[in-house]
Amino acid sequence: MNNYEFCVPTDIRFGKDQIECLDKEIKKYGKKILMVYGGGSIKRTGLYDKVYEVLKGFKIYELPGIEPNPKLSSVRKGAEMCKKYGIDVVLAIGGGSCIDASKHIACAAFYDKDPWDLVLDKKKVTKALPIFTVLTICATGSEMNPGAVISNEDTKEKLEINHPLLYPRLSVCDPTYLFTLPKRQTAAGTADIISHIFEQYFQPNDGAYITDRLSEAALKTCFKYGPIAIKEPQNYEARSNLMWTSSIALNHLLTFGKGGAWSVHPIEHELSAFYDITHGVGLAILTPAWMRYVLNSETVKRFAMFARNVWDLDRSDDYEAAIAGISLTEHFFIELGLPGTLSEIGIDDSKFELMASEAVRTSGLSTRAYVKLDTEDVVQIYRNCL
Amino acid sequence: MNNYEFCVPTDIRFGKDQIECLDKEIKKYGKKILMVYGGGSIKRTGLYDKVYEVLKGFKIYELPGIEPNPKLSSVRKGAEMCKKYGIDVVLAIGGGSCIDASKHIACAAFYDKDPWDLVLDKKKVTKALPIFTVLTICATGSEMNPGAVISNEDTKEKLEINHPLLYPRLSVCDPTYLFTLPKRQTAAGTADIISHIFEQYFQPNDGAYITDRLSEAALKTCFKYGPIAIKEPQNYEARSNLMWTSSIALNHLLTFGKGGAWSVHPIEHELSAFYDITHGVGLAILTPAWMRYVLNSETVKRFAMFARNVWDLDRSDDYEAAIAGISLTEHFFIELGLPGTLSEIGIDDSKFELMASEAVRTSGLSTRAYVKLDTEDVVQIYRNCL
Repeated sequence: MNNYEFCVPTDIRFGKDQIECLDKEIKKYGKKILMVYGGGSIKRTGLYDKVYEVLKGFKIYELPGIEPNPKLSSVRKGAEMCKKYGIDVVLAIGGGSCIDASKHIACAAFYDKDPWDLVLDKKKVTKALPIFTVLTICATGSEMNPGAVISNEDTKEKLEINHPLLYPRLSVCDPTYLFTLPKRQTAAGTADIISHIFEQYFQPNDGAYITDRLSEAALKTCFKYGPIAIKEPQNYEARSNLMWTSSIALNHLLTFGKGGAWSVHPIEHELSAFYDITHGVGLAILTPAWMRYVLNSETVKRFAMFARNVWDLDRSDDYEAAIAGISLTEHFFIELGLPGTLSEIGIDDSKFELMASEAVRTSGLSTRAYVKLDTEDVVQIYRNCL
Repeated sequence: MNNYEFCVPTDIRFGKDQIECLDKEIKKYGKKILMVYGGGSIKRTGLYDKVYEVLKGFKIYELPGIEPNPKLSSVRKGAEMCKKYGIDVVLAIGGGSCIDASKHIACAAFYDKDPWDLVLDKKKVTKALPIFTVLTICATGSEMNPGAVISNEDTKEKLEINHPLLYPRLSVCDPTYLFTLPKRQTAAGTADIISHIFEQYFQPNDGAYITDRLSEAALKTCFKYGPIAIKEPQNYEARSNLMWTSSIALNHLLTFGKGGAWSVHPIEHELSAFYDITHGVGLAILTPAWMRYVLNSETVKRFAMFARNVWDLDRSDDYEAAIAGISLTEHFFIELGLPGTLSEIGIDDSKFELMASEAVRTSGLSTRAYVKLDTEDVVQIYRNCL
């Protein structure tokens, strides 16, 4: 087991009506709130009105319109507002995109120059406004971790900023807010959660047995409840299990004592950057192809372990078990209603070389990934998804 | 899934040589340390010298001699020292007993009257010194939770104090410090970890599927590595897996979305209180007897699930599976070298009535336990352990 530092100070308020706590909890930090949200969905569902009702004693400034892959321009705007109005607390109402933008805004509020500098050099992050979140999509785990992914529309870069100051102070995770989530978003979110677990599970493991078993517990939960949440959007048991699993899938618990660079995420990030597709959709298409590509005599044991412990397959031959486990995973994504190929979402091979070289250049794919991949490998994985 | 609040701010520094961080981390809070430890083992192993080497810039005051079931008198002494010397930080070097005493001392340092008041009424806890820990026995999980169990030698009470201010600020968890642990302590510690997981697993579960699967992951880890740690005390993989599992076994992760009062712990607490036996030894003796006593048509499904998911038993009949799972658990404790009966440790039936009525009086056994038990039931469980 590798040495590991683990400190997750976020206060999770999980369950029905937990939003009521915001009045008391935000009050500790001040009276002026920057409320960051996306499209109009929170107005349709009544959550927007609920927030105003709970926070009636506060002065709320709004930053709506955060994009699915949050853009630097939104962060710039939010940081300006924080400075101009003397904001005390940043409150994200939404999914990972809103929370990620809020994190970047929270530290950019104390930075004089362009916020992108903070992404490029996290040493420049020295202070951040307290961040509160009300989660409406479960997928990224951003509500319980210190990371944020921001897209720079000028440079076409999509990079992560990660700093302990960016842990949300408190996150309201009310599974009933997921009841109105469209099927497609539920499916993509579930694929994202699963991919987060895979990225940590498919790594060399020098004896971190407990971490692998916890990951399998989380995977089983996704495979059980993903389809239920799609068939029965108001199934509280399904929504609550997926919601909590999405938080622990990316709060470092499932990488404790392990390490290594991620594989499918950087390959997917280029798809989102070039074609602006939904992150989870790209992950669902790429994951089985990546699995088949990296399956070899060294990795087969882990893929077979996955098949046996998560899918309860009892085949004794490692290769047979591994291949069956990968097929079940692929089938699972398709059953969720997600596309199975890049062609289905209108992506052809015209940018494969460029995207692959960017994926390798901006990540640890060729140096620290589970199976090291160079540009040629990534091109081939894209091709296998056509 | 029940509503749940989860906030575990402790900074865990896990792995070899993590103790080196103490200089930098304690410095943030001041220069005067109260160092709380037990017997002489840390002097024999060299850890005592190591602490002084790492903390050479600090003024260290010592409170040695903390008992296995830490006593109120030690807490009184520690609190007096904090006031007298103007202590900035309480540093526990040891297992759960040292850490528990340190937590109580940390809040008693700011309380004018007798520290026992704080146990009886946690509203009186308003402030606490920062608590740092260096773990040398893994069992209680106290290094990552806000609870402490203290024995009042005057009233013969053994009660818990639990307050968010009592989360350790930082815990050094170095598995190599477990290398010198005697077999008997390793065995008792493992039984304690397992019992913590059982207390949370054997509860009604209204849909917290993920929590049950995480618990099974933790149980599998204990059953795999307990015997290895006893046979090979310097096996890093075994020690590290047990050490991290002991922390997550009692940091609320395994009770997330669930609830209910514990069963075997209160029944055991009376054994420790009346006979001063090792807590984990009492738990190992009582657990299989408790399981058999509460096995009925309502609970059998959960016991069968335990047998199938943790012990990989494939019997289709629920009762058969449940009974086999309980037998394997009992056998496991005996294989660890723990006594299987109360008679073996010199306890007869002379105090069963008194202990049983105390157990019921001071706990939720008869009101909120998995299977509600009154005094008669508890007496019978003690009898079944003779």
